[in-house]
Amino acid sequence: MHILITGAAGMIGRKLTERLVIDRALNGQSIDKLTLIDIVTPVRPASFSDHVKTRAADLATPGVAEKAISERPDAIFHLAGVVSGEAETDFEKGYRVNLDGTRALLEAIRLAGGGYKPKVVFTSSIAVYGAPFPYAIPDDFQLTPLTSYGTQKAISELLLADYNRRGFLDGVGIRLPTICVRPGKPNKAASGFFSGIIREPLAGQEAQLPVADTVRHTHASPRAAVGFLIHAAGLSREQLGPRINLAMPGVCCTVAEQIEALRRVAGDKVAARIKRVPDELVMRIVSGWAERIEAKRATALGFKAEASFDDIIRAHIEDELGGKVA
Amino acid sequence: MHILITGAAGMIGRKLTERLVIDRALNGQSIDKLTLIDIVTPVRPASFSDHVKTRAADLATPGVAEKAISERPDAIFHLAGVVSGEAETDFEKGYRVNLDGTRALLEAIRLAGGGYKPKVVFTSSIAVYGAPFPYAIPDDFQLTPLTSYGTQKAISELLLADYNRRGFLDGVGIRLPTICVRPGKPNKAASGFFSGIIREPLAGQEAQLPVADTVRHTHASPRAAVGFLIHAAGLSREQLGPRINLAMPGVCCTVAEQIEALRRVAGDKVAARIKRVPDELVMRIVSGWAERIEAKRATALGFKAEASFDDIIRAHIEDELGGKVA
Repeated sequence: MHILITGAAGMIGRKLTERLVIDRALNGQSIDKLTLIDIVTPVRPASFSDHVKTRAADLATPGVAEKAISERPDAIFHLAGVVSGEAETDFEKGYRVNLDGTRALLEAIRLAGGGYKPKVVFTSSIAVYGAPFPYAIPDDFQLTPLTSYGTQKAISELLLADYNRRGFLDGVGIRLPTICVRPGKPNKAASGFFSGIIREPLAGQEAQLPVADTVRHTHASPRAAVGFLIHAAGLSREQLGPRINLAMPGVCCTVAEQIEALRRVAGDKVAARIKRVPDELVMRIVSGWAERIEAKRATALGFKAEASFDDIIRAHIEDELGGKVA
Repeated sequence: MHILITGAAGMIGRKLTERLVIDRALNGQSIDKLTLIDIVTPVRPASFSDHVKTRAADLATPGVAEKAISERPDAIFHLAGVVSGEAETDFEKGYRVNLDGTRALLEAIRLAGGGYKPKVVFTSSIAVYGAPFPYAIPDDFQLTPLTSYGTQKAISELLLADYNRRGFLDGVGIRLPTICVRPGKPNKAASGFFSGIIREPLAGQEAQLPVADTVRHTHASPRAAVGFLIHAAGLSREQLGPRINLAMPGVCCTVAEQIEALRRVAGDKVAARIKRVPDELVMRIVSGWAERIEAKRATALGFKAEASFDDIIRAHIEDELGGKVA
């Protein structure tokens, strides 16, 4: 089986690659080839080097998508995209990468011909929803995004569903909740503090909390996100029906509950490293975000997030810190 | 005030043009210029000829959208598009006209610069919804279209909302219900019989009814559709809020109720011209269509459909038959 990953150099792309290299199989079929593309050349996974192609390429550039699928990958994980903040500050780049890039990939698949019909797993986002929200967002809630990024994700979902319906591919879109704990350095994303208040204290550093600890949000670990992608690739058309874009489950909790979980898992000393530094701008942005996602269909289809925020913290300690807390 | 109508040669476009020429004003401002474009050259309205430009042009062709807005129309009614059946049989044409054409128009507006910010009224459709449906479709129901046409309308709605949010234009999208009674010859659209069973009997001809008379659907007259467009152009950003795409109200009734209304308005002899000729294909297509649309927001914002199907029939007799029944 040949697998293509777009956006393979990103955090989720790297973790998905690592997992596939360990599993050596997807949906019970052994993997004999990986193609990894991104704007920067993805790192070659060490233990799989004979069968890996890596390439730096932009799907929105004419010819790139055709080349990416010229060897007819059986499964495509389409993760490539510019993030929310960049799509908002650079309007044209956001539409070019997140919309035109996705459409170019779908068109290349459609025009490949010869009965080619790959599995396409697309990472969407809860940014497709826009306030005001009901108490919990049901699976049939409208998409009224309040960012260009969310708009581009919602449009890509619609395209994927139409190409799926027409039989050009077997598609599934998964709306990821906020991924927490993101490894690496703090970033300036408004959602960054959700990871920062766990990651920095566990690494012996102070972290700033810019919002009230009553703020409620839904989270899934990077490990769970990779699990969603792999589970999505195994769903059949019959299981999915015509509504192929699914909100993913997550752990819904307040910031106060996040902090209590950190205290339980890592102790008072670690939890004390969180400093309250209110930030009006972050508070305002976060107030427009979805709090609770029902994700009934995804749960019924077998998608699994962590059972508690404690588990999300433990996953981070195991996967990123070698099991050790500073 | 300068008004641009795209798709001006279509049925709704012609009726909107006639109405604007009679009103000579929109939102209380007098109209001093009309630009009418379509794939075929729109007819010049006789009584307004000094101030009308008509042009045959395809918005998806490079340069056409820029030219269409080069004189900075204050209000744009964007009606242009290929219909549902054609978008389904010609995949590439549907996306080119309905998606690329709309995007080209929006991009031309964005790039015009100099503070240009027109009112843009976009005609969407209840084809943005896809079965299975709840008893009645609420305003916050998801868009999961089951046609390429519905997909293209849903994507155009999302684009319009993002361009509106970014301040490039003042947008409003209206999801039209089935327009009934459509004037003119019978066509092969699966929805054609809803008009045919009224139009043909009123003209002294037989009509075929391909579905059971328990079939329920939501209708608005061409006159009401033009009213929606004009009302939409008068709504402010404050009235609309961020969710600028609105399901329109209509008359919800069964085919049996349509026939009873015809009997009340035009008599037994006319109603007897409807022949039952069941058609499995039409039955299957229609079974996937929305029955009831709540349209609570549109109703609260002052959009008005007819009060009964009797009124829809009377509007047809007045507007198309000079008040006379055959």
